[in-house]
Amino acid sequence: MKEEDNLLSLVKEQQKEIILLSYSDSLLSWDQETYMPEKAIESKSEQMSLLSSIIHKKLTSNELFNAVKKLRNNQNIKGDDKIMIERLYKDLLKSRKIPNDFVRELSKEQSLAVKAWKEAKEKSNFKIFQPHLEKLVKLKIKEANYIKLPGHIYNSLLDSYEEGMTVEKLTPKLEKLKVDLLELLNKIKSSEKYKTQNLRLMSGNFNHQIQKEFCDDVSLKIGLEKDRARIDFSEHPFTTKTGFNDVRITTNIRKKPLFSFGSTIHESGHALYELNMPENHKYDILGNAPSLGIHESQSRFWENMIGLNEPFWRYYFPKFKDNFKINGGFEEWYKEVNFVSPSKIRIESDEVHYCLHIILRFEIELGLMEGKIKVADLPKVWNQKMKELIGVEIKNDSEGVLQDIHWGWGNFGYFPTYALGTIYAAQLYESLKEKFPKIEQDIESGDFSKVRLWLNENIHKHGRKISTEEIIKRACGEGLNPEKYISYLKEKYLKIYV
Amino acid sequence: MKEEDNLLSLVKEQQKEIILLSYSDSLLSWDQETYMPEKAIESKSEQMSLLSSIIHKKLTSNELFNAVKKLRNNQNIKGDDKIMIERLYKDLLKSRKIPNDFVRELSKEQSLAVKAWKEAKEKSNFKIFQPHLEKLVKLKIKEANYIKLPGHIYNSLLDSYEEGMTVEKLTPKLEKLKVDLLELLNKIKSSEKYKTQNLRLMSGNFNHQIQKEFCDDVSLKIGLEKDRARIDFSEHPFTTKTGFNDVRITTNIRKKPLFSFGSTIHESGHALYELNMPENHKYDILGNAPSLGIHESQSRFWENMIGLNEPFWRYYFPKFKDNFKINGGFEEWYKEVNFVSPSKIRIESDEVHYCLHIILRFEIELGLMEGKIKVADLPKVWNQKMKELIGVEIKNDSEGVLQDIHWGWGNFGYFPTYALGTIYAAQLYESLKEKFPKIEQDIESGDFSKVRLWLNENIHKHGRKISTEEIIKRACGEGLNPEKYISYLKEKYLKIYV
Repeated sequence: MKEEDNLLSLVKEQQKEIILLSYSDSLLSWDQETYMPEKAIESKSEQMSLLSSIIHKKLTSNELFNAVKKLRNNQNIKGDDKIMIERLYKDLLKSRKIPNDFVRELSKEQSLAVKAWKEAKEKSNFKIFQPHLEKLVKLKIKEANYIKLPGHIYNSLLDSYEEGMTVEKLTPKLEKLKVDLLELLNKIKSSEKYKTQNLRLMSGNFNHQIQKEFCDDVSLKIGLEKDRARIDFSEHPFTTKTGFNDVRITTNIRKKPLFSFGSTIHESGHALYELNMPENHKYDILGNAPSLGIHESQSRFWENMIGLNEPFWRYYFPKFKDNFKINGGFEEWYKEVNFVSPSKIRIESDEVHYCLHIILRFEIELGLMEGKIKVADLPKVWNQKMKELIGVEIKNDSEGVLQDIHWGWGNFGYFPTYALGTIYAAQLYESLKEKFPKIEQDIESGDFSKVRLWLNENIHKHGRKISTEEIIKRACGEGLNPEKYISYLKEKYLKIYV
Repeated sequence: MKEEDNLLSLVKEQQKEIILLSYSDSLLSWDQETYMPEKAIESKSEQMSLLSSIIHKKLTSNELFNAVKKLRNNQNIKGDDKIMIERLYKDLLKSRKIPNDFVRELSKEQSLAVKAWKEAKEKSNFKIFQPHLEKLVKLKIKEANYIKLPGHIYNSLLDSYEEGMTVEKLTPKLEKLKVDLLELLNKIKSSEKYKTQNLRLMSGNFNHQIQKEFCDDVSLKIGLEKDRARIDFSEHPFTTKTGFNDVRITTNIRKKPLFSFGSTIHESGHALYELNMPENHKYDILGNAPSLGIHESQSRFWENMIGLNEPFWRYYFPKFKDNFKINGGFEEWYKEVNFVSPSKIRIESDEVHYCLHIILRFEIELGLMEGKIKVADLPKVWNQKMKELIGVEIKNDSEGVLQDIHWGWGNFGYFPTYALGTIYAAQLYESLKEKFPKIEQDIESGDFSKVRLWLNENIHKHGRKISTEEIIKRACGEGLNPEKYISYLKEKYLKIYV
């Protein structure tokens, strides 16, 4: 056997072990959020922390890095193998910049911060979380300095979630998006229809068992096969891959009668992506999404462009009407499904407000990283921005600055991917309709197969072989373009409201 | 720090990691039997096999063994630490006798055998399983020769499940038990009551939801706290510990209306033992049961001595009667609960026949190990022995020789622990009644707290600090004594039948 064959099988074997261990770790997390008895938490955390440390050791071993380095310089490595080696090299280079001691310190602070965040949220008291967040912000700045990508300090964090994205590229686009969204909202809010709108059909009684059955139904329709995926309940809906051919999503029933249905469609979008990654890369780095933004584009696509769409409800409304004994017609229902109404909570926001929630967080994160915003001032800053952007008065920290767990996890640079995904989704939907001008007839008849296959072909099957930007360019003829999202919103909502 | 302190913390840290990884491995197994989507099996097996290999490497590392050897000779190691080191030394010595290549080979053959066993059972065709079982028997003989304990070759296998037990000690006791059981069965079967018995109350409709609620109820009553344990469904009921303060049991609803209830009591007995192991040994070898027989004594105790007992049903029958609309009185119900009636299936057997099922398997295992029984002849041998011991005609392999998965797992030497547990349970019950002469009044009022506390105090809290024999001697004033089981059965069943 040639040297490169030996090295290549070492690199593949190591990746496989890392991925298998990560799957086991994911199962532990899934279990923790779904079925685990409460008092098991301590032992479960120790199990997860041990697995993480074994994974980290494997990932940062000199053996792996040296093999990758040698293969990078080997002319015989071609095609997917070459791409894999390049991706791996970049990732390893980055993770090797961060000292082991720092990883342990960060991980310790994260668990403490999450615990404090939970208590703070329960008691609606930011002060409980504040000292932990202060430490985390300091650590994240330190981490960014270890990584040290060119440009803005935030780039080094953002890049972990959205490879290739920078503050320099993103800021002007989001600035423009903010202006456009506020303008559109102004139009909507000054309309007569907006001023007189009120929920009637959705204030009825939506039987929980039937809600659950509809969740199962829509996930199956979208393409989630029961022998490769499952749905459970958890406090917050999420998707996780716990093995090849094994994706778990969760849902939750909240006050809004469409919350479980919508969140199931959303998570099913994530799940479909995971289930359709290229099988020949199931145990290497290329069997992943190239970024969180592109991942989110899949969930937002199904949740919004399909699941809040008129043809979709032409199909589902009669079933909802019968099963929940809704006393009203389709037009009213469709309007209520798409009510534009400011929400204090991001994940309960309508389509038009959603990106403003993200822009708020992005601006705050930049401020924190640049040292222009102090953690102690966060509630004040948050509430003020909420008033400016969303137009709501925040009454307590729990419904305000404490609503998301992400900062407790130390995930700075993560939030923008939600906006990116939302924008990509609109771009994808436009391309899909160009390709299949009659696709809405399919959707209206409950047939989503063309949609799914088009996504498989244009997004899923690439895994991480090509970059997010390249995927979007190939699928939509251009890169990130928030204008497309704005025109999508205008077409839909001005029709409803103006 | 002294050298022994360093070594001791190394040994404890290694044990902790091994135990944490085993818990994660157990969660994967639990998931596989309960919630896992079907097509995830391949990836799940790879995850488990990787965890097992990491565990095995840690367990057989020279670093650990050398530390243990040094500590064994260190005069400063005292008390529990000394016991821990001795137990560990014995275990490591044994596992180090078995070559790595052999472990891998055995593990590979086991997975193939389990797969073949499943197919064979489904098609009721022993021939599909036969070549795999032949290989496994050869491998287990090889394993026994690696271990090479004194006396009968089977001792080397038996000792893994029932430390200290030998063929020499066990055979005469089981021989005598067989004679006594057959004599008792003769008496019962020749009684008028036996000849005219028939199920009336238990042939009604037992609503599954209510069955599930009764399972939850009895497990709670026995002491399974919801924040440390949970109950799910699986094909075969089992108990597994997936973390400290985290024990999972499963049940299943079968044709027999008491199957789920009885199996839940049984598994809850196992679970209580696990939940009450000494906390200061939660991450070392002493936080375990000293043998499977003593473990089984806890499940059999709750299932039989409590759960098939008159006072127990004085408490539960009124609830069963109301909920399942049973048209009949307590006496008839109690008799039906304790119907003596030969079963082809071990785990559906009544108390009187049960140990005969085990004796049959013990005799066959000895024959296989001694080379006196050929695998090819197993169906014939099995059916003949079933006729002699249980008095039933086996019509196909599925209800006969293929009913248990144990041999597919390569678990030879395991079955006797079921009989040992059953016998210990009877001895424990006698001691309990001596200690609390009015205990049956408690049980009749649904109060099991004294029973539970007595078991904690006499069995659970020792963990593996003292041997099974010593535990039984301290609790019952003597070691293993099948006579006690016979007198328990006589007292109970002659009263019912004769």
